[in-house]
Amino acid sequence: MPALQNDRLLRALLREPVDATPVWMMRQAGRYLPEYRATRARAGSFMDLCKSPELACEVTLQPLERYPLDAAILFSDILTVPDAMGLGLYFTEGEGPRFERTVRSAADVRALRLPDPEEELRYVMDAVRTIRRALAGRVPLIGFSGSPWTLATYMVEGGSAKNFARCKRMMFDSPALMHDLLGRLAQAVTAYLNAQVAAGAQALMIFDTWGGVLTPRDYREFSLDYMRRIVGGLTREADGRRVPVILFTKGGGQWLADMADTGADALGVDWTTDIGDARARTGDRVALQGNLDPCMLYASPERIRSEVGRILDSYGRGHGHVFNLGHGIHPDVDPDRPAALVAAVHELSRPYHA
Amino acid sequence: MPALQNDRLLRALLREPVDATPVWMMRQAGRYLPEYRATRARAGSFMDLCKSPELACEVTLQPLERYPLDAAILFSDILTVPDAMGLGLYFTEGEGPRFERTVRSAADVRALRLPDPEEELRYVMDAVRTIRRALAGRVPLIGFSGSPWTLATYMVEGGSAKNFARCKRMMFDSPALMHDLLGRLAQAVTAYLNAQVAAGAQALMIFDTWGGVLTPRDYREFSLDYMRRIVGGLTREADGRRVPVILFTKGGGQWLADMADTGADALGVDWTTDIGDARARTGDRVALQGNLDPCMLYASPERIRSEVGRILDSYGRGHGHVFNLGHGIHPDVDPDRPAALVAAVHELSRPYHA
Repeated sequence: MPALQNDRLLRALLREPVDATPVWMMRQAGRYLPEYRATRARAGSFMDLCKSPELACEVTLQPLERYPLDAAILFSDILTVPDAMGLGLYFTEGEGPRFERTVRSAADVRALRLPDPEEELRYVMDAVRTIRRALAGRVPLIGFSGSPWTLATYMVEGGSAKNFARCKRMMFDSPALMHDLLGRLAQAVTAYLNAQVAAGAQALMIFDTWGGVLTPRDYREFSLDYMRRIVGGLTREADGRRVPVILFTKGGGQWLADMADTGADALGVDWTTDIGDARARTGDRVALQGNLDPCMLYASPERIRSEVGRILDSYGRGHGHVFNLGHGIHPDVDPDRPAALVAAVHELSRPYHA
Repeated sequence: MPALQNDRLLRALLREPVDATPVWMMRQAGRYLPEYRATRARAGSFMDLCKSPELACEVTLQPLERYPLDAAILFSDILTVPDAMGLGLYFTEGEGPRFERTVRSAADVRALRLPDPEEELRYVMDAVRTIRRALAGRVPLIGFSGSPWTLATYMVEGGSAKNFARCKRMMFDSPALMHDLLGRLAQAVTAYLNAQVAAGAQALMIFDTWGGVLTPRDYREFSLDYMRRIVGGLTREADGRRVPVILFTKGGGQWLADMADTGADALGVDWTTDIGDARARTGDRVALQGNLDPCMLYASPERIRSEVGRILDSYGRGHGHVFNLGHGIHPDVDPDRPAALVAAVHELSRPYHA
């Protein structure tokens, strides 16, 4: 493998010195880019795109051609794991992801298979290998998975939840069954992430998109505890370098101190928390990733620049900050806007690292 | 007016001694009740129901016939104010509220009229008078309004926002224009709430449904500051009794201490914050209202009861707690479930007030 030419991301995630704050964007390979829409049209369905290592590699690299981003992230979907466990994932236009089979009974949970990442999920591992080769050391590649709780919501509801009626009812009335499901998911996710590292992923991120709909107590018991188990089971070194792990719970700003105790190297922070306040509450235990309001990319380049300055100032001097949006980039953003964001981060952050 | 027979709500909102914790539910007059659906069908459209003082009174009283709730809340919609300012509100099946005209330019803001509550909003005031008469002192009547920021999101977007693209762009790129709009809304809401008090409302609640989508800084500048202005301009006494004001920002758990500084008597707390933690952070400055996960009403009566006990225990001994859901009741809840909730609150809370 060629040597890594830009290791700002890996260094910042481990709170090591960098010359400028690294920046990438959640969903940076996505619908806001016309070149993504063109590849997507060629691929056929969204799952066809995910299942083609060559096309997944193509869209993963597209944002790097436009912007001097400091990381690539595997193009895939969080629902590949439940699909490989036997649920039959498909996407409907306008309605999002759906499963052919749902998980609502003890028999449903028992029927779930623990996928072998190099068998049922080989297309993901092939994508990781293809992307890593194509990157040729330009920037590191981030692998990822959904959190057990987040995956469970889709598996129990059969798709996107409206108000989480079924999965919360299972959690409230049949907690042992929900724990059984989450335990199996934690096992599957651990194996999945470790296989991504073996295939070439240089950092990992766990997306807990729906942990924020829980009470603090339920969050700790049904989401955070399973992320902690995963973190404890991960391969933390590859190619002689530490593989940092980022945890991100959307809407989890109140629980950052608990999240910092899981052993993760970094926490994602959404825009509803001040990042300086997040830093004060987590101390020097973790790096922080965030946290521009994704809607700021609808504003003028000047306004984007001033907000980038404000966030850098709030984090303050010292290392351990990875700039990102507080959530995925919206599909109707003008592709000129991320250019203003990335330039502002690299330019305005240098004094904080001097 | 007949004397108030049950003043637990008013006393608890002012942190005065009560025998048991009062309880009501956001959206308690609503679609989960078959009798509501029957009245709604007779009324015609949703707005016809809001605009008929007799039918609005009928549905306001329906949950009180089923459950021994400690408060009634005016049946109405937060968008009556923008409608009266000239935007032309209507509802479409499945898509929710829509406005005939939107507010996107300085000319649009200037064209907004400041409604006279006893003219353009007379149907609301007539509903308050009708309900208050029909209640005959059984429980107090809560009046309400949306917050300026929350109303502005609908006015700029033309209906429910998907990702707040237009209203946030106005806030980011044209802050003076957004402040002009919010200032007019604060004036309109103050007059609207004061008119509700004059018509008979005995407590007031400001619903900031969308304050939680802002950064902490934007929240203070574009939502909280206008709620503070409203609180400062309200009539705080009627019939020789204080009229308590409740502020509720959904997703605002991180900002409760700031909210407690507005002069409001009580804060609504959603289920993502522990109510004991909220109490510790707000001290004895305000009462707290909340905070059962609305999804708990999908669970068994036994589970509902245990969760009620847990929340009462978390708040702890002493007065100043009004039990409620952390958000509106879901329309597909079995109407037997709120009975378990209300009984559990009244029964289990007595030792905390002994």
